[in-house]
Amino acid sequence: MRHPQAVSRDGASRDDLARAASDILARLRARSPRVHCITNAVAQNFTANVLLAAGCVPSMTLSGEEIGAFVSGAGAVLVNLGTFDRERREAAEIAVETATQRKVPWVLDPVFVDRSVSRAAFARELIGRAPKVVRLNHAEFSALSGGASSRETIAAYARDHKTVMALSGETDLVSDGERTAAVANGHPLMARVTAMGCAGSALVAACLAVEADAWKATAAALILFGVAGEIAAERARGPGSFAMEILDAVYGLEPATLIARARVS
Amino acid sequence: MRHPQAVSRDGASRDDLARAASDILARLRARSPRVHCITNAVAQNFTANVLLAAGCVPSMTLSGEEIGAFVSGAGAVLVNLGTFDRERREAAEIAVETATQRKVPWVLDPVFVDRSVSRAAFARELIGRAPKVVRLNHAEFSALSGGASSRETIAAYARDHKTVMALSGETDLVSDGERTAAVANGHPLMARVTAMGCAGSALVAACLAVEADAWKATAAALILFGVAGEIAAERARGPGSFAMEILDAVYGLEPATLIARARVS
Amino acid sequence: MRHPQAVSRDGASRDDLARAASDILARLRARSPRVHCITNAVAQNFTANVLLAAGCVPSMTLSGEEIGAFVSGAGAVLVNLGTFDRERREAAEIAVETATQRKVPWVLDPVFVDRSVSRAAFARELIGRAPKVVRLNHAEFSALSGGASSRETIAAYARDHKTVMALSGETDLVSDGERTAAVANGHPLMARVTAMGCAGSALVAACLAVEADAWKATAAALILFGVAGEIAAERARGPGSFAMEILDAVYGLEPATLIARARVS
Repeated sequence: MRHPQAVSRDGASRDDLARAASDILARLRARSPRVHCITNAVAQNFTANVLLAAGCVPSMTLSGEEIGAFVSGAGAVLVNLGTFDRERREAAEIAVETATQRKVPWVLDPVFVDRSVSRAAFARELIGRAPKVVRLNHAEFSALSGGASSRETIAAYARDHKTVMALSGETDLVSDGERTAAVANGHPLMARVTAMGCAGSALVAACLAVEADAWKATAAALILFGVAGEIAAERARGPGSFAMEILDAVYGLEPATLIARARVS
Repeated sequence: MRHPQAVSRDGASRDDLARAASDILARLRARSPRVHCITNAVAQNFTANVLLAAGCVPSMTLSGEEIGAFVSGAGAVLVNLGTFDRERREAAEIAVETATQRKVPWVLDPVFVDRSVSRAAFARELIGRAPKVVRLNHAEFSALSGGASSRETIAAYARDHKTVMALSGETDLVSDGERTAAVANGHPLMARVTAMGCAGSALVAACLAVEADAWKATAAALILFGVAGEIAAERARGPGSFAMEILDAVYGLEPATLIARARVS
Repeated sequence: MRHPQAVSRDGASRDDLARAASDILARLRARSPRVHCITNAVAQNFTANVLLAAGCVPSMTLSGEEIGAFVSGAGAVLVNLGTFDRERREAAEIAVETATQRKVPWVLDPVFVDRSVSRAAFARELIGRAPKVVRLNHAEFSALSGGASSRETIAAYARDHKTVMALSGETDLVSDGERTAAVANGHPLMARVTAMGCAGSALVAACLAVEADAWKATAAALILFGVAGEIAAERARGPGSFAMEILDAVYGLEPATLIARARVS
């Protein structure tokens, strides 16, 4: 996500995705989709605020009795495995089952699967249950796939698992197995604020709620969050002010700015 | 809470409530009441910071073993049903029982009862156990009462349940069945930051700790938080800076400003 | 921590500790130690952000299945008893056992032991299991030790329990039984933001990860957080902006500033 250098290899598709990001943001603001998040306690507040800044209506309950109702009424769901515990594991099971029945798109963010064997096993099981998107970093991809991450390996993984893979890094890669986009927006300060990645995955879920093409929705989310991060960095003096500024930047993001600043290939 | 237009119909009572708000804020700062909150994980941090900014001492434990001791030593208690789970349900039971025994005033915020049948049933049971105040929005009121919300229906509900009803909306309504105040302070950005409503309910609890007239305490809390929101909005560029500015505004709120800006009828 | 007046009684040791703080901060930035925190839900987000601002990699899981792996891979561990519950109690047990086996240094922050008998009993048991540092305030020290806090009583407690005691107050005292430092940096606004103390204890843990002398590491953490607090206060208008500014201040802290502003004796 850092030090953007990627140059569009295909001007048309770059412009398509930039314009798609702008359209999708407009739809978020117009439709205010509900996004239900099963996420870690560290990330809940910031994630909710990013979704609200983008025009969405977040909900976060983990209660087994209630989660079915919340997921049924949601436009999309995020399942994030950070600070994982029994309650969240049960909540994830119910949420995925309900989402599958009700055809609600869901995103898996397998946080820290490289640090815990049981977490990796659970993530693999969830990937078998058809998330629309899996968002993760290089170490997490290696822990899940058993191999190194590259444009080719993530495309293969996406094909094999019939999902969209979104790999975070200096440049984010988004692949559905056929199409692969490289999103170079973002700023190093994004790695210095907790829950920034989790909130980005929640934005991916939000975009799925208003865009049926999961690959396009994912690229759009990463572009708009990355551009907001760049704007925030111009105004920030450190990670404290950056966390505040990125919320303001998401909230105030102009379509023209988004299109002009998108760095996607 | 938005676009304040309400005009005082009774100059004296408007001035009374504005002055009451100023007095109550001074008492919060002078006495630093302890306020125990059973609230959702999303809201805990921001709620604690709002209470600290107002001069109070928040506590948040949910442990069954400990909550009795914390509630016994508190000046007021908040029971918020957001991100509801087994642990919080048990904590709420113990907290309400202890508060009743020790005559500690408590506030119920039945978040999202319009989205979950089991939550609504639990909220109704809690309302039967004599909260001093129930704070909720229009959808939540309809889910609980089975009818539409209006000045008349909330007053009737308050009379029937011997409580103060605080209905959030463009203009907040506060009724104890006999007296109904309309508080028009606030700003639309308050709806764009998570936990803003929860924090407002915590402020209602805080005011109950220093003012025996629950109706007056509730109106005061909504006036002071609404005025702080207006001041914050003048300085903010979006929801990120707004969340920061409202804490500064609560902390720095001047009695004269509060009285001058109160919009209550 | 407030109104620094302490004057160095021993110029050499003052300069030693100020320089140690600067060295230790440089090591945090260079080595990015992993710090695992068992902490309350209120504090998790802010604590993680303070650690990230200082260059560390925080983790926060409480899951019994996973915590062993996280602690084994960590450079230091924080056990904070705020908002204590069954899950955190079990997590603390496993974390302390793993830390002891793997020789990972850990810090105990016995929050609110003065308010709950069961919490105090558990804290005493944990102190018997050899934390490198115990950080607490005057009321908490009295609840644990049964006596008043003073330079002498905390030194005696440190000797008896073979640990470093860090007592928060207007001036922080840090004693290993032989050496006692008084750190006078900090600002009253630090008491107006929730989780500030918890985050400070996490910084103590972070410094233990890069400095074997626990007394020096503790003093360094309190100096650097206190100086950051003073810088933040100069830029803040209240507790909201202060919370943001202290993250920026930790992130941007210059060695020369740290050494010049350290008030330690």
